[in-house]
Amino acid sequence: MNVPAPIRDFLSVETPTSWVNSAVERVPELLLDHANCELKAASTALGLIYRYPERGALADRMSRLAREELRHFEQVRKIMREFDIPFERLSASRYAGRLKEAVREREPERLLDVLLVGAIIEARSCERFAAVAPRLPDALGRFYLGLLSSEARHFEHYLAFARSETGASDADVELRVAELLAIEASLVTGPDPEFRFHSGAPAGFSRPRLAAST
Amino acid sequence: MNVPAPIRDFLSVETPTSWVNSAVERVPELLLDHANCELKAASTALGLIYRYPERGALADRMSRLAREELRHFEQVRKIMREFDIPFERLSASRYAGRLKEAVREREPERLLDVLLVGAIIEARSCERFAAVAPRLPDALGRFYLGLLSSEARHFEHYLAFARSETGASDADVELRVAELLAIEASLVTGPDPEFRFHSGAPAGFSRPRLAAST
Repeated sequence: MNVPAPIRDFLSVETPTSWVNSAVERVPELLLDHANCELKAASTALGLIYRYPERGALADRMSRLAREELRHFEQVRKIMREFDIPFERLSASRYAGRLKEAVREREPERLLDVLLVGAIIEARSCERFAAVAPRLPDALGRFYLGLLSSEARHFEHYLAFARSETGASDADVELRVAELLAIEASLVTGPDPEFRFHSGAPAGFSRPRLAAST
Repeated sequence: MNVPAPIRDFLSVETPTSWVNSAVERVPELLLDHANCELKAASTALGLIYRYPERGALADRMSRLAREELRHFEQVRKIMREFDIPFERLSASRYAGRLKEAVREREPERLLDVLLVGAIIEARSCERFAAVAPRLPDALGRFYLGLLSSEARHFEHYLAFARSETGASDADVELRVAELLAIEASLVTGPDPEFRFHSGAPAGFSRPRLAAST
């Protein structure tokens, strides 16, 4: 496993092997949902700029982060074309939605939670890329390993802003991270009837929904 | 005037000199609203990807366009810092909102209208940069002239997609362009109580709302 140490130390559970086994059989769905995730990550970053425009350092960093996510979006779409994977609409996984439900409404708790959820999603994405890459076709595996360092960097940025922008103490941040990671662990390891990039342990489906053309 | 010929030919009216005179006196507001416009342009592009994900060429181009708008957003924010212009929230001008009200609900008319409104906004932005640049402080004027070619390129992309993605005939496109440009002309030349990057002829305000620090 190539998971960077800070991310391995941060996450409370590893991706189940059963998810990795499913992913290898469902490359088209994996890529399709991955493209969606990159787009949503860019939207989330833009949302932070809209909501907190007076926070200059945050706005500047989120704009750069959104650009990077969009470049990945384009790269995934290019790989999909190369693998001859047709685009189709895919419902979102439960993962990001459930984490966002945990975001508190009042400020500055809201900003803290949004930034920590951002850090968690980037950390998990990084860990999943590392977990699945060695078992993917060569070119795709290399691409996924290449994304590790971006995701790790984004994770660090979100976490740093959670500390610098919200006035939360280290203890407050740690406590909230632990609470959110408990939710995250249940989403990642609990049975999930749908396969997605961030889905849980495969349950109740046996055949890939899209035929792999590779 | 450095307005590229295709854009001069496309727009039905020029920016009123009274707007340029106001802009020169309101550089902080101009930059602030310009930054907002770049962000909104990126959001609009992302919105097109979300709504029409199966249109691969459009999604790919919109992602690149959004990245370019975000880079401009960062550049404008950097200039604001250099000019010591504090960030503050600014209400949106009537311009884009009124144009978007004209977008029809049914497809494929909706897509045609959204793309044409995109083309019009890019064209007007380009024309305004050219109109105001020669009267701005040197570094800012050069920056604005540097943006001309991007905006002109974005204009061409939107217009090309309006033709290639919607199945509309050249005659249909021309007719709809004429209808939307008639609305646009009234917004650009009609009296406007608010100063913004895309506002109309200044009316009912005399002093800059933000003090220029230059």
